[in-house]
Amino acid sequence: MKIVNKMIPSWLQHYQAKHLSHDVLAGVIFTILVIPQSLAYALLAGLPPHFGLYVSIFPVLAYIIFGSSMVQAVGPVAITAIMTYSILSPMATPGSSEYIMLSASLALFSGLILLLFGWFRLGFLSQLLSRPVMSGFISGSAVLIIISQLKSLLGISYQGQGIGALFNTLTQQFSDNNYMTMVMGLTTFLILILSRTYLASLLTSFGLSHNRATFIARLVPLVIVFFATVLVVNFKLDVTANVTVVGHITEGLPGFEFFLPGYDSIKTLAMPALLMALIGMVQGISIAESLAIKRRERIKPNAELVGLGTSNIVAAFYGGMPVGGGVSRSAVNVASGAQTPLAGIVSAFIMMAIVAGASHWLARLPLTVLAANIMVAAISMVDFKSFKHAWSYDKADGLALLGTAGGVILLGLESGIVLGVTLSLATLLYRASIPHIAVIGRIAGTEHFRNIARHHVETIPNVLLIRIDESLFFGNLNAVEARLSNEISKVKEMTDLVLVMNAVNRVDTTAMEVLNELNCDLLEQECKLHLAEIKGPVYDKLKYSPLLQSLSGEVFFTTNKAFETLADAKGYSQA
Amino acid sequence: MKIVNKMIPSWLQHYQAKHLSHDVLAGVIFTILVIPQSLAYALLAGLPPHFGLYVSIFPVLAYIIFGSSMVQAVGPVAITAIMTYSILSPMATPGSSEYIMLSASLALFSGLILLLFGWFRLGFLSQLLSRPVMSGFISGSAVLIIISQLKSLLGISYQGQGIGALFNTLTQQFSDNNYMTMVMGLTTFLILILSRTYLASLLTSFGLSHNRATFIARLVPLVIVFFATVLVVNFKLDVTANVTVVGHITEGLPGFEFFLPGYDSIKTLAMPALLMALIGMVQGISIAESLAIKRRERIKPNAELVGLGTSNIVAAFYGGMPVGGGVSRSAVNVASGAQTPLAGIVSAFIMMAIVAGASHWLARLPLTVLAANIMVAAISMVDFKSFKHAWSYDKADGLALLGTAGGVILLGLESGIVLGVTLSLATLLYRASIPHIAVIGRIAGTEHFRNIARHHVETIPNVLLIRIDESLFFGNLNAVEARLSNEISKVKEMTDLVLVMNAVNRVDTTAMEVLNELNCDLLEQECKLHLAEIKGPVYDKLKYSPLLQSLSGEVFFTTNKAFETLADAKGYSQA
Repeated sequence: MKIVNKMIPSWLQHYQAKHLSHDVLAGVIFTILVIPQSLAYALLAGLPPHFGLYVSIFPVLAYIIFGSSMVQAVGPVAITAIMTYSILSPMATPGSSEYIMLSASLALFSGLILLLFGWFRLGFLSQLLSRPVMSGFISGSAVLIIISQLKSLLGISYQGQGIGALFNTLTQQFSDNNYMTMVMGLTTFLILILSRTYLASLLTSFGLSHNRATFIARLVPLVIVFFATVLVVNFKLDVTANVTVVGHITEGLPGFEFFLPGYDSIKTLAMPALLMALIGMVQGISIAESLAIKRRERIKPNAELVGLGTSNIVAAFYGGMPVGGGVSRSAVNVASGAQTPLAGIVSAFIMMAIVAGASHWLARLPLTVLAANIMVAAISMVDFKSFKHAWSYDKADGLALLGTAGGVILLGLESGIVLGVTLSLATLLYRASIPHIAVIGRIAGTEHFRNIARHHVETIPNVLLIRIDESLFFGNLNAVEARLSNEISKVKEMTDLVLVMNAVNRVDTTAMEVLNELNCDLLEQECKLHLAEIKGPVYDKLKYSPLLQSLSGEVFFTTNKAFETLADAKGYSQA
Repeated sequence: MKIVNKMIPSWLQHYQAKHLSHDVLAGVIFTILVIPQSLAYALLAGLPPHFGLYVSIFPVLAYIIFGSSMVQAVGPVAITAIMTYSILSPMATPGSSEYIMLSASLALFSGLILLLFGWFRLGFLSQLLSRPVMSGFISGSAVLIIISQLKSLLGISYQGQGIGALFNTLTQQFSDNNYMTMVMGLTTFLILILSRTYLASLLTSFGLSHNRATFIARLVPLVIVFFATVLVVNFKLDVTANVTVVGHITEGLPGFEFFLPGYDSIKTLAMPALLMALIGMVQGISIAESLAIKRRERIKPNAELVGLGTSNIVAAFYGGMPVGGGVSRSAVNVASGAQTPLAGIVSAFIMMAIVAGASHWLARLPLTVLAANIMVAAISMVDFKSFKHAWSYDKADGLALLGTAGGVILLGLESGIVLGVTLSLATLLYRASIPHIAVIGRIAGTEHFRNIARHHVETIPNVLLIRIDESLFFGNLNAVEARLSNEISKVKEMTDLVLVMNAVNRVDTTAMEVLNELNCDLLEQECKLHLAEIKGPVYDKLKYSPLLQSLSGEVFFTTNKAFETLADAKGYSQA
């Protein structure tokens, strides 16, 4: 019985009948709504569009079995798609069988890495990507996505990625055999943008409920895709007006395709797969968490990783496209009324039916309409607000965000994120290397000590109390020494120096030796060094060190104790 | 008059007549004593031995003019020499004119870098090399030096560097045409080791003063070099017994040789020169500082850098070998009785006379004797004590030391130091990512708060006080969140959470957002979040952040204020 309990997820054991109709309906609506974006992201990844439908079947089921979120929708997503394209397009021609093989390997490797991260509880590694870096990465990627889709939208073709290639093309390649593509694409783009921005509020002002209005606004892409396809079929625009369409799609459900990746592909794809897994991990977990908070549920980060990992491994053998947890996919799922993962199960089976029987309907869907869909989604990913907030709170974090975004756009996705992580680590070190150091005194009548520059405090002649607001390590000792000698030189005939260590969380070997030298130097000048408020863990280490063994002064439990002892010794009458 | 004052260094302006005889005598003795090591280190650097004498003339004067230490002796030193060999031997055949040119360029570049470091006050960069890393680097280099000298000592030859090459040679190449070299080398080695270890104390036990005994012990290398040369000359050992000697030395003083380094050499040597400058900076400044402390003087770190830089630039054009501040050289200088840089000036002129007139005496000096000298010096550089101390104080620092030493020995000097710096930075990040967090309570009858696990303290029901002993940044939020939720889950019906921030020196954007989310989550559970003892600089930044704008609880100036306010609100009677 216990084993059965473990095998059956708790949401299923405690399934409430009232949710059933919601979940089934949500599954149907969700599936129809995500068809355009699934096709579009496969296209963005450089794969045949219907691959986006394939990976919306079994990978979804795999995530439902192993993941922990109630409503996160896994499938083809924008960031994973642009990363796939960015990693693989220099290695093979997008859409070629070699490219498809590489894409499947990439999904397999990043899935395995996610699975290992989950098993070995390495989820904490994702914190190497700070929020500003992650935000910069997403905004930068969005810009790359927008640029990459312009050629499909406008029906032009150019080589390479990035702004340079686009500009060259735009100035050379306008011709009139693509005007219909352009009209279609730009019209779709405008309708999508306007409906996203105004439609919901317009409908609300007509008296619809907020939820219903939002839901109708979400239907717009599907309506456009349908309408555009009808146009193409009716007027044979793909033949007469050069409008590129999805094209022939193999009918029916493909089987699982097992393969063993070669050593070469492991070597070339290991690092990109790791990066993809890291990004997928951060995105997947953060989406699942924010959805769970809204629903007052809890997710298990390591189960999430196992879920995402298994999902990608299944995707490698069935569809061959890396998948992830998507913001807009999950939002559609919630908006459709999903209550439990049952909605996802229903959706997977409906998708299976569509792929098996109806995929030929998609053959004449114009690419430009999909491109417009991707671009509108990408525009909403560019996050100026995060930059504004980070910049106003902390310039260095703002710069890290900007550096990551700029790096992604100008140098590529991998270099961009490496640049961002480097920037944030460098900031960290730089900050720690210029510690805040305050000369402190006692607030009269209390036991509180504060910066003499910020507060009105009492001090003892010939005695210097200094608080160091930073862990002491090899990288900040020069600054600490310089500041200490500066403060020491200001005090006439100093007899006692008290270092207040309540904000010193660690003292490394170099720092211990430097403090020990300070102790000896001061002793030669007939000045004692005292330490106050050493933290427990720091004291445990210092106890047997040369510094405490040969300390000329005392170790005080509190700063106040130090103050009173030294004031008494000097016969200094306290206020 | 003011300009004159600036031009003439203060030691010369205030020169005391009583020092004159000391300085002159010290100059003479010092020069004679350092001849063997000067020749030996040039050899170690892969240069003709007499180059070691050349760079003991004008570069020494350059340092005296610009440096700030009274007694530091600059010249050919072990670490600089092994670095030169390690950097250049893969690029050209040691001793070839190409090699000599590269060596001069290396001296020029590292000199220029040191000069720039001095001008732009970049001395703080040297702190990137923590003491354990520096100590590991020196010990590892010493092992490489010992290995590199074995071939000269034993009269064998092998290609390459490192343990592998040595082992291959030792098992293959023993023959009897080198037995005389071996006997000579090993005898020298033994005498030097024994005299270093026991001679001074033996002489002291015969009634000599400590200083005199130490001085006599320092004469031993010179006596051996002299005696060995006499043996070679008398018995023609270089011809009859295959003993390799220094060989032909160009008579007389060379002129300055100016050159402009090519773009290629700038490209290949820039990084090695930077590394050399960094190491030279750390060594030079630390030696100068420790000598100054003993003499109750002060050095100017930036002047030291300008001194070392100029010295190397002069060395590039006169002698072509990088120079540095040497521990043993400076010790010899002090032991000879030097009081001011005048001793160095005297020494430079005597060295000039020796090079001009007497260098042919050195032609038949056997290399094996110099190798024994280098090896003994290198053995004393291997520093097990530092490792023991670092290990016992802090395992991670011990590992960084060991990693650097191992890296130097097995991977080479550059990779070793890069490994060491990486290890110490990784340790730093790892430590900061697992912060110490304590649940605290008040020590009854005081205003002091301590860890409830370490002290007997009072607490308030439904209220949790948590002190975080680390700056909050993107890299430790997972750990902080996990610990907080763990502690929160232990408290029944928690109404108030107080975060005590007196050891939080910074809160980055990611951390501020995470705290803000915690604030919202707690509010949903009807629990207020309070902050206490925020440091001034942290508060300045948080003041206008979303966290403080929407904080559900209060910001308390002190932890005690928070405790009393919450205790009052709960009607909790205080002890």
